[in-house]
Amino acid sequence: MKIDVYATQNSVIEKEWKDRLVVIIDVLRATSTIITALDNGCKEVIPVTEIEEAVNISRSIDPEGFLLGGERNAVKIDGFHLSNSPLEYTREVVEGRTVVITTTNGTKAIKKAGDAREVLIGGFLNASAVGDHVACKDMDVTIICAGTGGKFSLDDIITAGAIIDGIMQKAVSPVELDDLALVCKFLYDSHKDHVLDALKDTYHYRVLEKAGFYEDIRFCFQKDRMATVPVYKDGVIKHLVE
Amino acid sequence: MKIDVYATQNSVIEKEWKDRLVVIIDVLRATSTIITALDNGCKEVIPVTEIEEAVNISRSIDPEGFLLGGERNAVKIDGFHLSNSPLEYTREVVEGRTVVITTTNGTKAIKKAGDAREVLIGGFLNASAVGDHVACKDMDVTIICAGTGGKFSLDDIITAGAIIDGIMQKAVSPVELDDLALVCKFLYDSHKDHVLDALKDTYHYRVLEKAGFYEDIRFCFQKDRMATVPVYKDGVIKHLVE
Repeated sequence: MKIDVYATQNSVIEKEWKDRLVVIIDVLRATSTIITALDNGCKEVIPVTEIEEAVNISRSIDPEGFLLGGERNAVKIDGFHLSNSPLEYTREVVEGRTVVITTTNGTKAIKKAGDAREVLIGGFLNASAVGDHVACKDMDVTIICAGTGGKFSLDDIITAGAIIDGIMQKAVSPVELDDLALVCKFLYDSHKDHVLDALKDTYHYRVLEKAGFYEDIRFCFQKDRMATVPVYKDGVIKHLVE
Repeated sequence: MKIDVYATQNSVIEKEWKDRLVVIIDVLRATSTIITALDNGCKEVIPVTEIEEAVNISRSIDPEGFLLGGERNAVKIDGFHLSNSPLEYTREVVEGRTVVITTTNGTKAIKKAGDAREVLIGGFLNASAVGDHVACKDMDVTIICAGTGGKFSLDDIITAGAIIDGIMQKAVSPVELDDLALVCKFLYDSHKDHVLDALKDTYHYRVLEKAGFYEDIRFCFQKDRMATVPVYKDGVIKHLVE
């Protein structure tokens, strides 16, 4: 099986994911938030790219049954119930509900890959669970990192490395890594015992830390805290059903 | 000063280079070939994107005074004097002549950055010389790697790390690295004593090795063999004049 990684959604070569398994990573914080919401019993997550779209979709759902979540430039959107902090998506808040979410980078990447064979939502929180599932499928996989503002973002890249490590530990056939996948794996292996320390000079980490979200960062980089593997299909993210 | 790195020319955010120093890297093999040609006394190099353009330009030059060089998919172009192997660009062949060159990835990246403040041609061969010049200028710099077939290519990334290392050793003001620049520097530091070994599982290395170009790879990764810093201006690459 082949593993290819793209550092940003706009650098992806389209034909390369059509018949593949795709894993989307926006570890700070969109995909971590989605994993957490589903792990805490939320019914489904609907990712949308525009704020207006989120509001429109929510109008067709029972007001008690949904929550609007998301951010623009790391800040909660006016009139929304929740921001993009996974810490807000507790069982008390999300259980049994539909979350409609829109974020600056992550939801765009998820929607872009909609026509792949299968689209999984990955993070540090579920790295081994995603790795297990991919290894089991034994299909070529494209990992798409959301990046930050269209740029290479080390937080996503190290997370891709954690997932590649998970895949390789369980793979049943030889794994062929493209150049960026090799780099992700090397960076993860080099920093896995001190990930937050390795990220402290990176752009996204610093922006979030300055905005008061250090606890979010810490939460998102708990390795394998969750076994939930969210799958995006027909516009909706739900638990993987095997 | 800030250092930003892009892994492929198509991932570059345009506004980010307009008022900057730009360094173009296509270490295997376009920029290594250009550095070698100028170091061996070639008068100038004219990079063009299309084969027809190369032929047209050459018609306006004294037939004795020019050479057509380049490749498509690592293979010499029919009717051209030279391929894209730096080993062919010896002093005997290139001295005093104009080289018109077109390659799959490198020349496109060079031409794209034409409107930057200054465009330098970088490689492993001249990493410290380029680093010295950039440090001296003390301006923000954008390093654009050509990549391979639109994808992240570790050969270029490690070369960017070597140039960043050179800049940082001579910088007169604090250096701020973006995420990919941090990664380039880390990968160079981790592999600088065994670069070819670190590249042996990468895509571009394997393609060239299989095509019989191992000696080219070895040549291109000789650190600081040359002090030549080529500059691209008004469509032509010449020696830096300070």
